[in-house]
Order: sequence, then C-alpha cells, then structure tokens
Amino acid sequence: MNDLKRHGKAIKVYEGENKVLSSLEEAIDKAGVKDGMTISFHHHFREGDYTLNMVMAAIAKKGIKDICIASSSLGKIHEPLIEHIQNGVVTEIHTSGLRGKLAEFISKGGLEKPITIRSHGGRARAVEAGEIKIDVAFLAVPSTDAMGNASGIGANTQCGSLGYAIVDAHYADTVVLLTDDLKSYPNMPASIRQQEVDYIVKLEKIGDPEGISADATRFTKNPKELKIAENAAKVIRALPYFKDQFSFQTGSGGASLAVTRFLKDFMKKDGIKASFILGGISQPIAEILEEGLTDHLFDTQTFDAYAIESFRKNPNHHEISVSEYANPWSMGSVASQLDYVILSALEIDRDFNVNVMTGSDGIIMGASGGHSDTAESAKVTVIVAPLYRGRIATVVDKVTSVITPGKDVDVLVTERGIAVNPARKDILAILEKTNLPVVSIDALADAALKIVGKPDPIEFTDRVVANIEYRDGSMIDVIYQSKA
Amino acid sequence: MNDLKRHGKAIKVYEGENKVLSSLEEAIDKAGVKDGMTISFHHHFREGDYTLNMVMAAIAKKGIKDICIASSSLGKIHEPLIEHIQNGVVTEIHTSGLRGKLAEFISKGGLEKPITIRSHGGRARAVEAGEIKIDVAFLAVPSTDAMGNASGIGANTQCGSLGYAIVDAHYADTVVLLTDDLKSYPNMPASIRQQEVDYIVKLEKIGDPEGISADATRFTKNPKELKIAENAAKVIRALPYFKDQFSFQTGSGGASLAVTRFLKDFMKKDGIKASFILGGISQPIAEILEEGLTDHLFDTQTFDAYAIESFRKNPNHHEISVSEYANPWSMGSVASQLDYVILSALEIDRDFNVNVMTGSDGIIMGASGGHSDTAESAKVTVIVAPLYRGRIATVVDKVTSVITPGKDVDVLVTERGIAVNPARKDILAILEKTNLPVVSIDALADAALKIVGKPDPIEFTDRVVANIEYRDGSMIDVIYQSKA
Repeated sequence: MNDLKRHGKAIKVYEGENKVLSSLEEAIDKAGVKDGMTISFHHHFREGDYTLNMVMAAIAKKGIKDICIASSSLGKIHEPLIEHIQNGVVTEIHTSGLRGKLAEFISKGGLEKPITIRSHGGRARAVEAGEIKIDVAFLAVPSTDAMGNASGIGANTQCGSLGYAIVDAHYADTVVLLTDDLKSYPNMPASIRQQEVDYIVKLEKIGDPEGISADATRFTKNPKELKIAENAAKVIRALPYFKDQFSFQTGSGGASLAVTRFLKDFMKKDGIKASFILGGISQPIAEILEEGLTDHLFDTQTFDAYAIESFRKNPNHHEISVSEYANPWSMGSVASQLDYVILSALEIDRDFNVNVMTGSDGIIMGASGGHSDTAESAKVTVIVAPLYRGRIATVVDKVTSVITPGKDVDVLVTERGIAVNPARKDILAILEKTNLPVVSIDALADAALKIVGKPDPIEFTDRVVANIEYRDGSMIDVIYQSKA
Repeated sequence: MNDLKRHGKAIKVYEGENKVLSSLEEAIDKAGVKDGMTISFHHHFREGDYTLNMVMAAIAKKGIKDICIASSSLGKIHEPLIEHIQNGVVTEIHTSGLRGKLAEFISKGGLEKPITIRSHGGRARAVEAGEIKIDVAFLAVPSTDAMGNASGIGANTQCGSLGYAIVDAHYADTVVLLTDDLKSYPNMPASIRQQEVDYIVKLEKIGDPEGISADATRFTKNPKELKIAENAAKVIRALPYFKDQFSFQTGSGGASLAVTRFLKDFMKKDGIKASFILGGISQPIAEILEEGLTDHLFDTQTFDAYAIESFRKNPNHHEISVSEYANPWSMGSVASQLDYVILSALEIDRDFNVNVMTGSDGIIMGASGGHSDTAESAKVTVIVAPLYRGRIATVVDKVTSVITPGKDVDVLVTERGIAVNPARKDILAILEKTNLPVVSIDALADAALKIVGKPDPIEFTDRVVANIEYRDGSMIDVIYQSKA
C-alpha cells in the first residue's frame, strides 16, 4: 500500500466556451474518443438505460475500434454490445454485473479478453487508484444546467442518487453529460458539479423510468422467502448489536428486502431506532426514514419512484458516492460502520463462500454489486437463501464462482435452519440459547443434496472468460468458458 | 497546460482504528509531521482562530524545524508565528493575506525565504495541480463525528461554509480535524467526509466566534463611502447585464458591501431577481436570499452569525469549495458565471492595476483573497474606492503592489467621479449617456495628487520578501523589503 497515490484527472481550463453540443457525434469528436480508449458509464437507470447503447452506436458508426468499456454495471438492455464485440468496436469490459444475452455471449467465449468483474467498492477503489483509467465518461443525468451542475432529479427520467456517476466525474479525463432536461443555471443542489464537466448533450430521452425498478427489488409474497426473512430478522434481534442507534443494509433480492419488514416490527416493539441505513435504497427502506425509525439514509443508488421522492424531499436521505459507500482503500467507507448486512445468494457452500454471479449452468447471470463490500465491512453478515430453488440446490458443496469469501459471511438463514460460520463462536453461542433452528452448514448442504440430488458437473473449457476481483483488487476467482 | 494532471493524495486504508486522539501532540506524532514538511490551515475563523497557534506551539515544542505553512490566509491573531520563524520552526509561508505584527515582521525581512501570496482561486489551483503539496492538513471544524464527517455548524464555534478546508481535505496526504464539538455518528450533512480524514482531536475551544465577524465586513455609515456605493449601484443598473437572473458578488470592505443595499433597492424597483450571488456571504447578502430577491447563494466563506444561520437553514444557501468558487484551472468555476463583481482597493493606478496588499508605507496589510479571481472572471468588474484616505491617495500613478492587473478592471467609482477602463468602450458608451459623472482615470489621479500632494517614494531594499502570484500561477509582482 505504501506510496500509492490517488489518480489525478487531466486538468483543463474553461475559457467561456459553450459546453452544450448538438449531438453525440459532436461530443465523441470533441472528447477525442479514439481506438483503444477506456470509456465509462453508470447503471443508475438499470434496465431503463438508453444512453450506453446510443453512445456505442455512435462510436461504432465512426469506425472507432478496440474500446474498453468500464461500466459500473451492465444489464439485459445492453445486448447490442454483442454486435460491437463481434465487430471489434469493443474488446474489453469491466463491470459489476452482466445479464441476459450479453452475459450468455460472454460466458460462451464471445469476447477474446476476459472481462473483469468488480464489486461496487472495488470499482471505486480501482478508479481512484488509477487501475482503471477512464479517458471519457459518458454520464446520463436526469437534469443539468449548461455548465454541468447535474442532478438525479429531473423532469423526464429520474434516478435519485448519482452515486456511481460522481466517482467517474471526479476521475475521468473528460466528462460528457447526457440529459433530457436542460435546466437554467444554476441547477442546484447538484450531485456532479460544473468544474468536472467538459461537454453536455441534450437527448430526446435518456432512459425509461419504468426500467429503474427491476425485479431485483420486488417485494416478495413467497411464503418460503417470508419465513427466511422472519428468521433472519430474529437472528438480528437476538444479537447484541441490535440496540438503539444500530445500523444495517438489506441487499436487493426478495427475501433480503423482506427482512426489512420484520426488522421494522422488531424495532417498533423494542423501541429501537437506527442511526443509519445504507444502500441501494428502495421503498421499504425509505418508509423507515419517513416513519422516524432511522435518523439517516445513505443512498448510493435509488431503486424506485418512492425512494426517489424520499431522496428529493427528505434532508436526512443523503446521497453518497460509491467511494464513500464502500471503497476499501479510503480512511473509512460508510460500509465500514455497518452493524448488520443482509444479503442474498445464488449459491453458498460448506465454507460459506457465496456466489451471486453465475447460474447452476455456469452462465453469468448476476452482479457482484456491494455484496463482498458490505459482507466484509459489517459486524454481522447474514445470508438469506432458500435451501434450493426448483430442482437446483442453493447450499452446495462448492460454489461455481466465489464473489464473497466465507471469511466475510457469519450466518446463513434458510427455510430449513440457520447455520453459523464456525469462526463466529460468539454468534453461535448466542443463537444456540434461542429457540431458533440452529444447524450446521453441512447439515443444510446434505439436506439440499438429498432433496435435489447431486447435479451433473458443469462443463467448462479451460479458457477464462471473466476474472473476478475481490474488493481489494486481489483475484478471488475466475469464470471459465461454459460448454452449456 | 497539456498533460497536467490533478495531484493525487496518498491512499490509506482504514482498518477499524479509533481516529479520535487524545492530544495535538499525539496527532502530530501519528501524522508523522517532521522537518521540512508542508502543513496547511484554513482561515474560516479569521481573527478568532485558536488552532494554528496551538498546533504550531505543539510542533515547536517537539523540536520540529523547517516547516512550510500553507494557510488559506493569516491574520493578526497569528502573530506567534514570528517566534516560530525566529526559531527556525517555520521557514516558508504560503498565504492569501497577512496582517498586523506578522505582516510587518515579514515586510521588514524577518523571513529569509520570500512568502508566496496567492488568490483564493489561485491557491486551489496550486493545491490541485500539486504545486503546493500538503503533507498534513490541520483543519479546525465546528463539529465532526468520530469518523470525520465534519461540518461548519457546531455547538461552540460555528463558521458556516468550510469552503477552504474542503480542498485541503481532498488533497492533503494526511488530514487531522480539530474540533470542540464531537457529535454522534453520522454528523450529517457533512462538508468534509469521513473517507478523507485520518485523525481527530477534541480541543476545549477551537476559536472565538466573535473573531469571525471582522472589520472587513462591517456595514459603513461613512457618507463618502455611501455616495460611492450608490454610484456603483447606478453603474450596475445602467449596464445591460442588470436584468432578471443576473448575478453578482460584493467583496468585503465597507463601500463594497454597501453597494448591496443600493443594488437591492434597484432590484425591487425594477422587479429584477438575481439567479445567484457569490461570495464571502455576509448578512446583507443573506437577507437578499431571505427576501426572495435571489434564487441561490454560493458560499465559500461565511462572514457573520446571521449568514451562518442562513447557511444552516436555507437550502438555497449552498456551500462551495474554494476550487468551485474560483479555480481558474477547472472546467468553469462559479466565478466564471458572474455578471458583476464589486471590489474595493487600497490603491488603483492610471492603468487600473489594483493593490489590496500593501499599505502606502510598503508594509503588507491586506489579502489577495478573491480579488483577481472575480475581477478576471466577471463580465463587469467595478472597483469602489475613495480618491484618498486621510492624507494618502488611493488613485495613484503606480500601485505599490499589483494584485489584480488593469486588464481585469472595468470601472472605478470614486466620490469624485467614475472612470472607465478604455478597453471597455461598450461600458463607456453607455455610461456617457447617463447623468453619472464619468471622468478619465488620469483626471482622478491628478485630482488626488492635487489634494494630498506627491508622496515621498517608499523606501525598499532590493531584497524580495514576497512573491505575488496571479491566479494562473504566473508571477505578477514582488514585494521588496521595507525600510519603514
């Protein structure tokens, strides 16, 4: 760590020029996008993002090749990248998540160079440390004035927090804002400030607000998930960190979000208020602030219209950059102050390693997100997951891909029992004194095996299609090309 | 300018340690302050600052030598630096201003190495560009939590905006906060965020709130100053930039602040609202926001208790860092959007050069501040100054020291007439059609000369005691050792 310095973006001097350009094409020219460059995007609009595809189409049309895309994440909507990869326009990808046809294409070896998968905090770390050097950031913003004071609140396409975009604006050599709501000066309060911004392009529409609230944040009605959620909340309540001024984050995913509902009931019953809730903020969390059961929300990404309205109107709903959220190479992220985090899993194994990235067929279908960031940081990390889904086990011998290592995971709550990481003897001792169904993780893995049977091993080639970085930049796993 | 990059501060990793230390001595040890280092301070508490002297006393006691002090400014209260200079503890000073005995001591050659005087925007530029590399920033903050989320609002010593401190927190390798109000986590909203902060020391008292409101922001009752102020407001009203959604800044100094009063009357009469007012924010400016005559205030330094209360409660009273305020090496400071700035002068000469630094005896007695920053940036720069003060001319043949070059100055308003820089033919043409007393600057200089007589030339040695940087880093003048 010694002698590492934060990356410094290019210094440029404003001389009174008009930053508002007439088209993406002009912005690409003025920003000097050329072969081999790294360009960045954020995913605040999730499946409703129009801008990445528009920018990449314009870049492809200009005949520019060999672009490295460093997006905070990628979704199903970014399927057109397949064509850009096939045409040599895109030759490298850094992302937190990958879904849909693009994920399948890459899993099956469609991109020559392995992609790099990072956690949200890990990406902030890599950008700040200059491991990802962003030449040009194309940042969709719900509103901006003509100088570049930009906000996640706008007339057409709102997203609330601009937590991912803030980091890119600070470190990219050139920053291009894309908006569909150009406001009069000054557009305050602003999340991105004018001195960071080179160009602005007004587009007809930057995204589909409907696409922001995706499945990952739906509220579950599944009885199995509700039971898991209730038991997870009971685990939290049983541990000594559950006291006035405690803090927590609930990850996305049905059961994980549902924990919030039960936790809220316990907080009311016990007369306990949180000091802060961290997240990805969705309606159930914003309601807790509204009801006065937490003093603060820290919001790096806003998940739905209700939470966006909370962000807009509630002065204790605070926007934070993803670096403030979880950058491990800083003097303390907000995550470092967490008491509890409740997270979901696609798979968890006998060593408590968690996979949220690859499906049981070995195909990429998820996102690293803030999983390992918060799991490592929080005092107690609770994974909520069903023992199996359909005919596929969740608790397994060995996860297909490690995103969060077992050392960061303390408790697994399933519908068949609660397993505690043997490293957390303190937690085990407490839970064993309750009437909660504490079992060993091996018992859960054995039970899952008994119910769904031993799966056929996934067939991979020996070619690596993705490198998975742990939040500190070390390589924690690789994903091989799927034969599926 | 090509290939210049922003300076990157040292990357450090928080590992759960307690940041709150028991004493300044411990902070100096842990921060690793040693011979030859550059340490920084801010001047938000102006003449009420206790912290610089306390830190320097502790450093001196440890036998550390050869320290470079990079303070955003220095005041009369920092007189104890004289002893530290004499003892070799301090051997270099970067500052915007210098007053009192310390200024006299340096003017008379007390410090071997010339000090460097910068404007506020020029200092932000130098810090961001790595020309000033801050090893350790000691930043007094009215409140912080134990992680370092710090604010200009606190229980004991409030200062409002932390505009200068924000820049140092971003770029100093090590950041030590000094507070007399340690809050529970999280202390939000915060101007300095936890991930920038290494250590925190709780002191009994960090400053004297009375010292924040200094003479420089008093409201004048002097009839001559009031006449000048009224005419300056008339000049502003006569020019075409005075229209709805215009913007302005009024500098400190009696006449300059008084312009605000007259301007407000004209705004009401003409039904005109400002889009923003920039500053140094004092009560008369905060009242304009309160009365709904401006949409926004941008505040890099808050001058009095009324303005601090406005900062605390009014969501359109925005804190900005001094880099956002006026850094010329950025993609556009807020100053770059100014229509008018009204500034005072100790001297202004026939070429419209302005001196706000040295007295008629050649002794340093002022501050560069935001003078050249706003003068260069605004569409119209109006200097308000009496023809003479006592027996000393203000309008002179040649200023003792140039802080703001004549190219940045458009209009001079005195009690004996209004002079327009010949470079601004557009302004001259408009003002000549009014009944305002437009004269040439030579006529004003001649009149001053006639009244107070030709002063004896100031006697200087040929040794330089201060280098004056223009905001872009070029050397605009030097101050020689005074024989006074």
